[in-house]
Amino acid sequence: MYQSKLFTKTIREAPRDEQSINAILLERAGFIHKEMAGVYSFLPLGLRVLRKIEAIIREEMNKIAGQEISMTVLQPKRLWEETGRWSGQLGREVMYKTGHGKGEVGLGPTHEEMLTSIIKGYVQSAEDLPLYVYQIQTKFRKEPRARSGILRGREFGMKDLYSFDKSLENFKKYYQKVKKSYLTIFKECGLEAIITEASGAGFTKEYTHEFQVLADSGEDEIIYCPSHDFSQNKEIAKVKAGDQCPVCGRKLKKGKSIEVGNIFPLGTKYSEALKAFFKNKDGQEKPIIMGCYGIGTSRLLGTVVEIHHDKNGIIWPLSVAPFQVHLLALDLTKERVATKVAQVAEEIYQNLKKEGIEVLYDDRQNKSAGEKFVDADLIGVPWRLVVSERTLSQDSLEIKERSREDKEIVNIKQAVKHLKEKIKT
Amino acid sequence: MYQSKLFTKTIREAPRDEQSINAILLERAGFIHKEMAGVYSFLPLGLRVLRKIEAIIREEMNKIAGQEISMTVLQPKRLWEETGRWSGQLGREVMYKTGHGKGEVGLGPTHEEMLTSIIKGYVQSAEDLPLYVYQIQTKFRKEPRARSGILRGREFGMKDLYSFDKSLENFKKYYQKVKKSYLTIFKECGLEAIITEASGAGFTKEYTHEFQVLADSGEDEIIYCPSHDFSQNKEIAKVKAGDQCPVCGRKLKKGKSIEVGNIFPLGTKYSEALKAFFKNKDGQEKPIIMGCYGIGTSRLLGTVVEIHHDKNGIIWPLSVAPFQVHLLALDLTKERVATKVAQVAEEIYQNLKKEGIEVLYDDRQNKSAGEKFVDADLIGVPWRLVVSERTLSQDSLEIKERSREDKEIVNIKQAVKHLKEKIKT
Repeated sequence: MYQSKLFTKTIREAPRDEQSINAILLERAGFIHKEMAGVYSFLPLGLRVLRKIEAIIREEMNKIAGQEISMTVLQPKRLWEETGRWSGQLGREVMYKTGHGKGEVGLGPTHEEMLTSIIKGYVQSAEDLPLYVYQIQTKFRKEPRARSGILRGREFGMKDLYSFDKSLENFKKYYQKVKKSYLTIFKECGLEAIITEASGAGFTKEYTHEFQVLADSGEDEIIYCPSHDFSQNKEIAKVKAGDQCPVCGRKLKKGKSIEVGNIFPLGTKYSEALKAFFKNKDGQEKPIIMGCYGIGTSRLLGTVVEIHHDKNGIIWPLSVAPFQVHLLALDLTKERVATKVAQVAEEIYQNLKKEGIEVLYDDRQNKSAGEKFVDADLIGVPWRLVVSERTLSQDSLEIKERSREDKEIVNIKQAVKHLKEKIKT
Repeated sequence: MYQSKLFTKTIREAPRDEQSINAILLERAGFIHKEMAGVYSFLPLGLRVLRKIEAIIREEMNKIAGQEISMTVLQPKRLWEETGRWSGQLGREVMYKTGHGKGEVGLGPTHEEMLTSIIKGYVQSAEDLPLYVYQIQTKFRKEPRARSGILRGREFGMKDLYSFDKSLENFKKYYQKVKKSYLTIFKECGLEAIITEASGAGFTKEYTHEFQVLADSGEDEIIYCPSHDFSQNKEIAKVKAGDQCPVCGRKLKKGKSIEVGNIFPLGTKYSEALKAFFKNKDGQEKPIIMGCYGIGTSRLLGTVVEIHHDKNGIIWPLSVAPFQVHLLALDLTKERVATKVAQVAEEIYQNLKKEGIEVLYDDRQNKSAGEKFVDADLIGVPWRLVVSERTLSQDSLEIKERSREDKEIVNIKQAVKHLKEKIKT
């Protein structure tokens, strides 16, 4: 798209009320807008990234037989009373509530109750299982601390998948499948996640698993093996940094980290409370065995920024970048060459689009080369393409990767093809 | 997808607590699930339709220079106080509120305040205008009556577009552009909308415009010309049925109708209250001239059902159908032919998918032909394709349109190509 048409503009100074790198860079570059603590709108650039993250997740969820639905924010009190969570800690401290008396409802911080209630209408016998259902939807949680930008929101995007199995054995197989799927998702988003054992929160004796990304800005702390074959959340760790890894013997390390996902055996807690039973082969009624699997989509976006940035701005991995190429037309203020530069840049822009490449084209008339470079570094599109008086004098363009220092000068005629090859591989 | 894997099932009886055709058919066919009055989750089939409607709208919005964003549900009280709407009728009676004291927030029934506040940070001079910004997002409204299924939701999907112009003249041009765009959207969704004059709700002396679809189940009433060149909401109409159309002289009619969209000149109400100014050429500060343009996405889905159904179920227009083809494999209970039918059907299924056609394949083993036909009619996929013992004996398949009575027998080898041609034209 033409940058002159983009309604957002970059901001030079860091917003005074933000401490986290993700919020500072994303707000300065015009990806998000803070409405209040922990509540952020997604502007055009930010929404493009979020949609790409969602598409990566959706593809993986569909591969593991996930069926996509979209449940409501408003949650009936009745359902949450059946599981005891309305007046439990979650209902009292975390869930926003609205309306009065009989009309009182909650704003979903999670959807176990609602989905269990939906699927029980469709499950009669063992033949109706397994079922895997997910949504990518907006969650609400009263976070006492909301100082980490979009890493910890009061309103945030989440992919939540729920599994419904007829046997523990089947459940365990699927649980392992999701583990692999999650690692693929995070890798695709440019993150290396470490599978970390964590507390079962009281209703499973087994560990649950978190996906932790090492980051100085993380709110969690993990004791992990450098080979990533072992990791425990410090909250439950019985080992410490320097100990031997119980799997491979290497020395364990300690590190701050961001939880980008978690997977959770739910057993029959919800199915029993909400009477989600199936008839087994012998005609006996059995509660469905459940698991839940979450990825915060907006948090994931924030984590990518925490990991991929430098002092000048964001460095988006190609897979989730708002655009693949940032095309800069320089010297548009110089009357002598402006027309020629604009003409060549426009042609390149159209050719790139024809090749299916997503381009942000900085066609702004009144900005200096310096301002355009600074903005490009801040916004962080992976490939920068420069058309200027100087490059044109050599019938060439300048290509630079956001993540590298070196530049490449490429003949105009080869430039589009050259860039396409780099992007598609 | 394989229908045997789809977790929803059809329901024979109409739900007892529903009166509206859209809710009855959509619930029976497994498209939606009622959580409480006016609050519906979208199940796999329903979500597929909703996404198609959203894609149609998104394409048209992008064509008229709309920039997509996603604002938050939670609304700061402060902004709504600045426009006076927090304690006005909307804030008091329509907006859900949550939290206490300083932490009190609203759940967005509309987003004029929030978006005006966002864009004012990016607009300084006339050169920054016009701006057109939209989102497809979830809205919340305390509806006293919520008896029309997804036509009137307490939580519902909406596309809201907002225009920011520097002159009334420019605003009016854009307003006309949106009118055309809306008619295109509704037509693409299989609906004929009548542009209808309606009340300006106190802050514009001019009319606003509603897009009304004639339907017996509608909550609105319009006085309209059969040529659609004139229509007024009965609430403001100074003409009556039988009068002459002031445009073409034809006799006016009266009809019940569903409002599927509205467009609204906002003038400078919000820009003045929230201080969204721009400097004009003479350096004077002027308030931005605004308009807003809404389409309820879930209501639109419900309207399609109200218009396109018969006594047996839904009849989806191809453009928004959950699948394009419903492939039925019959006689799977007959041992003699089951293998052959399943094998041929599977092959057809794979070939259709290869051609990019979206297929729901009824591969269920234990359902009779009668049950499969009844389900297919209820779900309402536009093209039905039947493989059975009888068709195979003729090396053929049976093709039928949901909207027609007649069937066509087509040679197996030509079937996929034949169907593709019908679908793509």
